[in-house]
Amino acid sequence: MKPTRIRHQVIFCLKSGAQGETTERFLRDGTRELTSIPGVEAFQALRQVSPKNDYDFGFSMEFSGPEAYEAYNSHPTHVAFVRERWQTEVTRFLEIDFRNL
Amino acid sequence: MKPTRIRHQVIFCLKSGAQGETTERFLRDGTRELTSIPGVEAFQALRQVSPKNDYDFGFSMEFSGPEAYEAYNSHPTHVAFVRERWQTEVTRFLEIDFRNL
Repeated sequence: MKPTRIRHQVIFCLKSGAQGETTERFLRDGTRELTSIPGVEAFQALRQVSPKNDYDFGFSMEFSGPEAYEAYNSHPTHVAFVRERWQTEVTRFLEIDFRNL
Repeated sequence: MKPTRIRHQVIFCLKSGAQGETTERFLRDGTRELTSIPGVEAFQALRQVSPKNDYDFGFSMEFSGPEAYEAYNSHPTHVAFVRERWQTEVTRFLEIDFRNL
């Protein structure tokens, strides 16, 4: 990665569980909403499969630098997604941000 | 990612802390040892910068599928690195494995 680049990831569990229509809808809607935000690159909705932690899913995305990351965080689409979907459908989560050494 | 592909990540802290010569040596040696193992792709040694968790570093790598991942896990170089360096220099860690939905 370039020096300023950030890989932002969040691993999470859903009230609706690891399978099923409601779960699929959340992942699909999250992908659609979050990828519509300028500056979001290399977005992936993923299944977390390690038995060594208790999370079921992950969103992974990259930003060219801190400005793009901050613009994403404060973007109305992100703020609305967090308020309307994340806070009502996600039971627990952990955020991880990587930069080059 | 292709359906079988796995992104394996571990976030961790070191006894030697987030900076300094011993820490740099661990990251450098880890990169050298782990990237020498067949099947390890897209390896990155990274700094974990989110204030929302308490880990300082990450190793990230990809495998073409479960067979390559298992071969890595049981490879003598990996086993030796875990025994000789990981278990003596890492204070805590969390493993995360992603696959496509």
